[in-house]
Amino acid sequence: MNKRGFASDNNAGVHPAILEAISKANDGHMVGYGDDPITKKAVARFKKEFGEDIEVFFAFNGTGANVLSLASFTQSFNSVLCAETAHIQVDECGAPEKLTGCKLIPIKTSEGKIFPEEIKKHLHGFDFEHHAQPGIISISQVTELGTLYTVDEIKAITELAHQYGLFVHMDGARIANAAAAQDLPFRSFTRDAGIDVLSFGGTKNGMMMGEAVVFFNTKHARFTKYIRKQSMQLFSKMRFVSAQFLAYFENELWKQNALHANKMALLLESEVAKIEGVTLTQKTQANGVFAIIPAEIIPKLQEQYFFYTWDESRSEVRWMTAFDTTEEDIYGFAKALKELL
Amino acid sequence: MNKRGFASDNNAGVHPAILEAISKANDGHMVGYGDDPITKKAVARFKKEFGEDIEVFFAFNGTGANVLSLASFTQSFNSVLCAETAHIQVDECGAPEKLTGCKLIPIKTSEGKIFPEEIKKHLHGFDFEHHAQPGIISISQVTELGTLYTVDEIKAITELAHQYGLFVHMDGARIANAAAAQDLPFRSFTRDAGIDVLSFGGTKNGMMMGEAVVFFNTKHARFTKYIRKQSMQLFSKMRFVSAQFLAYFENELWKQNALHANKMALLLESEVAKIEGVTLTQKTQANGVFAIIPAEIIPKLQEQYFFYTWDESRSEVRWMTAFDTTEEDIYGFAKALKELL
Amino acid sequence: MNKRGFASDNNAGVHPAILEAISKANDGHMVGYGDDPITKKAVARFKKEFGEDIEVFFAFNGTGANVLSLASFTQSFNSVLCAETAHIQVDECGAPEKLTGCKLIPIKTSEGKIFPEEIKKHLHGFDFEHHAQPGIISISQVTELGTLYTVDEIKAITELAHQYGLFVHMDGARIANAAAAQDLPFRSFTRDAGIDVLSFGGTKNGMMMGEAVVFFNTKHARFTKYIRKQSMQLFSKMRFVSAQFLAYFENELWKQNALHANKMALLLESEVAKIEGVTLTQKTQANGVFAIIPAEIIPKLQEQYFFYTWDESRSEVRWMTAFDTTEEDIYGFAKALKELL
Amino acid sequence: MNKRGFASDNNAGVHPAILEAISKANDGHMVGYGDDPITKKAVARFKKEFGEDIEVFFAFNGTGANVLSLASFTQSFNSVLCAETAHIQVDECGAPEKLTGCKLIPIKTSEGKIFPEEIKKHLHGFDFEHHAQPGIISISQVTELGTLYTVDEIKAITELAHQYGLFVHMDGARIANAAAAQDLPFRSFTRDAGIDVLSFGGTKNGMMMGEAVVFFNTKHARFTKYIRKQSMQLFSKMRFVSAQFLAYFENELWKQNALHANKMALLLESEVAKIEGVTLTQKTQANGVFAIIPAEIIPKLQEQYFFYTWDESRSEVRWMTAFDTTEEDIYGFAKALKELL
Repeated sequence: MNKRGFASDNNAGVHPAILEAISKANDGHMVGYGDDPITKKAVARFKKEFGEDIEVFFAFNGTGANVLSLASFTQSFNSVLCAETAHIQVDECGAPEKLTGCKLIPIKTSEGKIFPEEIKKHLHGFDFEHHAQPGIISISQVTELGTLYTVDEIKAITELAHQYGLFVHMDGARIANAAAAQDLPFRSFTRDAGIDVLSFGGTKNGMMMGEAVVFFNTKHARFTKYIRKQSMQLFSKMRFVSAQFLAYFENELWKQNALHANKMALLLESEVAKIEGVTLTQKTQANGVFAIIPAEIIPKLQEQYFFYTWDESRSEVRWMTAFDTTEEDIYGFAKALKELL
Repeated sequence: MNKRGFASDNNAGVHPAILEAISKANDGHMVGYGDDPITKKAVARFKKEFGEDIEVFFAFNGTGANVLSLASFTQSFNSVLCAETAHIQVDECGAPEKLTGCKLIPIKTSEGKIFPEEIKKHLHGFDFEHHAQPGIISISQVTELGTLYTVDEIKAITELAHQYGLFVHMDGARIANAAAAQDLPFRSFTRDAGIDVLSFGGTKNGMMMGEAVVFFNTKHARFTKYIRKQSMQLFSKMRFVSAQFLAYFENELWKQNALHANKMALLLESEVAKIEGVTLTQKTQANGVFAIIPAEIIPKLQEQYFFYTWDESRSEVRWMTAFDTTEEDIYGFAKALKELL
Repeated sequence: MNKRGFASDNNAGVHPAILEAISKANDGHMVGYGDDPITKKAVARFKKEFGEDIEVFFAFNGTGANVLSLASFTQSFNSVLCAETAHIQVDECGAPEKLTGCKLIPIKTSEGKIFPEEIKKHLHGFDFEHHAQPGIISISQVTELGTLYTVDEIKAITELAHQYGLFVHMDGARIANAAAAQDLPFRSFTRDAGIDVLSFGGTKNGMMMGEAVVFFNTKHARFTKYIRKQSMQLFSKMRFVSAQFLAYFENELWKQNALHANKMALLLESEVAKIEGVTLTQKTQANGVFAIIPAEIIPKLQEQYFFYTWDESRSEVRWMTAFDTTEEDIYGFAKALKELL
Repeated sequence: MNKRGFASDNNAGVHPAILEAISKANDGHMVGYGDDPITKKAVARFKKEFGEDIEVFFAFNGTGANVLSLASFTQSFNSVLCAETAHIQVDECGAPEKLTGCKLIPIKTSEGKIFPEEIKKHLHGFDFEHHAQPGIISISQVTELGTLYTVDEIKAITELAHQYGLFVHMDGARIANAAAAQDLPFRSFTRDAGIDVLSFGGTKNGMMMGEAVVFFNTKHARFTKYIRKQSMQLFSKMRFVSAQFLAYFENELWKQNALHANKMALLLESEVAKIEGVTLTQKTQANGVFAIIPAEIIPKLQEQYFFYTWDESRSEVRWMTAFDTTEEDIYGFAKALKELL
């Protein structure tokens, strides 16, 4: 039996409906690299969600989708502004710098979100060739700290950016959790809020693998097909990602999965909040719970359930729920935690 | 119904046994990024094939595997020597240059193979800082022209390379077809023939996706895990590639698939050889058939069967067979071709 | 007549002794790219200063020297830790990221210096492939805020770095000002303090152009000649930089120039300190004076003397002195400033 | 006494008029990085030569100028087509690949020149994302084999390029020798012949250092100032390059120097042609003479005069003349050669 846990939503498997779609797509010969009917349908499905005048490119993984997004809007002398906690800053082993040549500017944050006031401090040096030219702002929705931007907060960022000639990227690795938590259509807090390009994640919410780069500012999608190929994110048998996305939208599977994961996170939060010795450090707005617990019990708890330490210096841990987290997982975990404390 | 064809072995779907293995791997939670029991088994399976003292890294696609290989053995001031027809030279949109910074040196070839005599012409400028330093030779087995190196030919290259302090990479996107065609164990014409690093392909022979970078010279694998992550080739739910590789080795599925594809290519060759107006241009040693046919019939034939023009200037086409090519495909195609001529 | 000013020490010209050395070097044919007798002498002069077992590479400019240093000690998956005010972070248009592929980690500082406590916060994620691997720490001596590290402060950083397996680079664009201010031999606060590689600047202290990359950890100099060529920092007529360095060391010209510039900075500091409305913001330890003055007078003052605003948000300006700054420059400037206030 | 020779035109020193101009430019303070009056005059001088509507950027060296040119017209997924003998292909240690990410496509040549027929063979794969997209053609005038394109030959290339949507770069490291040899204004075989961007060399013809990147297609110069800074080619005390260019154009110094070097090459050619055992391999159209001589005498001759072996495999050597080559040099060399044969 495999150990269950709260390490990451990508420790979960694949939703059965997704697997079934993959099987169905295995139907004889199809042209490779995305020129197949399933991919065409999947792209059409994205257009239904976001509007006809978009461009969509599928990628293997989240880092790939983020890099394709950033590379399509920057040249190497640009800088990318993001939260100091952003996945592109902390968890991609420097892929954005390597692939785009750009400088990343980490912006102070306590909750994973960045705001115009802090961003503005880095909007200088324009036209001054010694300074990496501010090129794009990247925000994460859900953030890496499990928090959410409101639509107005996003608009404030995109307005600021566009006023200065910058673009805005959204890292939506957990966009389904955001949409479900706020009960909003995807479009309302992306395209309609002024986002230029979106990494639309599938892997963390029940797909096997597959992310979509969605361009609302399609002028910058002109060369993305070459960037994708050169960045090694072009899947030869692409139908097997496209079919997953079709199933993901079918009957709002994405929403069912995300609502469930979010619900489990709230349950987890409420259960651990009852336990003395646990200090919650972030608002639980999606499917992540952050807490400080005594350092000495962390390894013992990890023997029973997977999870990661988030900030060793203050003994902060991260617990992620997924589409397949069960109430038993939560209660069992809370019990184990309580016993250790 | 989907149109069948001979465009590429990646236009075929996934072998049922592979799909089944994927389903089985969908068994609850597992740690991501390769630290799961299925991946451990898959790596062990590679070690059984190639020896215990190797290092193996799974990647999403062939370009990814090639770049990981080259990047692990070079610095940006090195050059990579390869056939002018090599996939890394012609079909990867400059990914090797972009990701490694290296210069690629295309070597003249008429059959997709390169030989010491031609290679030697480029082995100069050592220690001369104005000249990109020859760093690694890359050969393809099967070549992009459907031909095969003998073990001795490979050894001649690796000996030359090592004598000059260079390394040798093998692009084995179709390595199964090579092993099957020559009835040789993988090890005999890779590790035992002096190859330093191998891109071991799965996708083109019945897997959904998945390539393995196999290091025989493990000293250079030291930093590959970082290179893989930074190159966006690290799969979070890696078990779903690992499970494919396990099934691929099980009962020598790889061999059944490859033998079949190779057999179909020989059948195709013999059928089209009978047709007046068809000139075969390469020996059919694996699963590709190359021929010159009249330019005007190409689009008409393509309406019935997928395939690509290889060299427009001389009206040369490429026909690839796959694990799922049927005799009916061949006879139907030969008939259609005959009628057009 | 040219306007004089305090914009930068590179707005000054070339010391006459340097010019004369250039003229003398113009003596017929010499082998290019550094294989000439003048360059050999210049390298020997550096060895006299720093020890025989070093490696020296001349470069065109400071950004070049910094990038050669960093590139020789890193791979693209590494990170470079530096003050948030570092030249490599703020004033090189992303050259380090572009050329090395590395992530730069800016560390909080109020005075341009960084300390072990803050550095340690970023020394994590080792062996974790998602995280850019901490590779090298870069400090500036003199810092970009005109302040100086003590030898002990430098040792504390190099000890920390080496303990964690990191290297330490010193950006010594103004190293002469540091040595002169502290009356220390170059070696004492570089090599002897544990520095691995040094950008030794000449341009800002009376040379026409020319920086030296000095390796104390020579193992990492093995490929620097290729990196220099590929980074476009290899000067064909190198003797004309080498001759400058020889003159620069002759009769301690570097020291005379630096002592003078430092002295002028102290004079400037004391003069402006007397003026109401001027708030000094940094200790004047070398040849830079930092002050807050009313925003509205800045453009008026700039009409009479060149200088740059350092931090627009708080109306902070930077005034640099040079080897050719005169007391008249200082008194004239102080007078102009006083009149405007 | 320094050994004289024919190794390269950059083994010569600096013309006295250039040195004098440098001295004169050493006139107190001037704003750095090109915003000084001398640079403005130098740019104006280029405009007088090539037309008002151009953009000019000074760089340190030839590799720098070439990379700035190529980088301004390409993205990383493009390819650069050039002669297999081109400096960018053979002598820049992969700088173009490293800095632009592009693939270089070497085109067969026996005389250093490329022609539409051969170029066309590489103009395919447009819009096909697997193939590096042909982006720019680079030709050298004078070529690396000492030969010259006629204006019509250049026009044939630029017409072909523009017809396919490509740009054309000219590597004019020895452009003065070309202009002098053909008695043509610079403009006639660059801008007026359809060239988009030119590396205009100074270093090899009597300057200390300094190359200019001249954009005729100024749309692509939009971001070059950032590219130059990020590529470490921005000179802080730029006036000292600008002053050289002013002197270079003054009284057509460039022409005097180039005519002399060319004349010396013709004299050298005629002298060595008389010697049995010397086979000239290229037409001497500028300042380079190429010949095959017995391999065993090469090192002996090199003891007396600097020069390089060009192609070891066939014992071919290169002899370059410079602005300061004397008739005595030629006669002495021919005598030495004769004695050895």
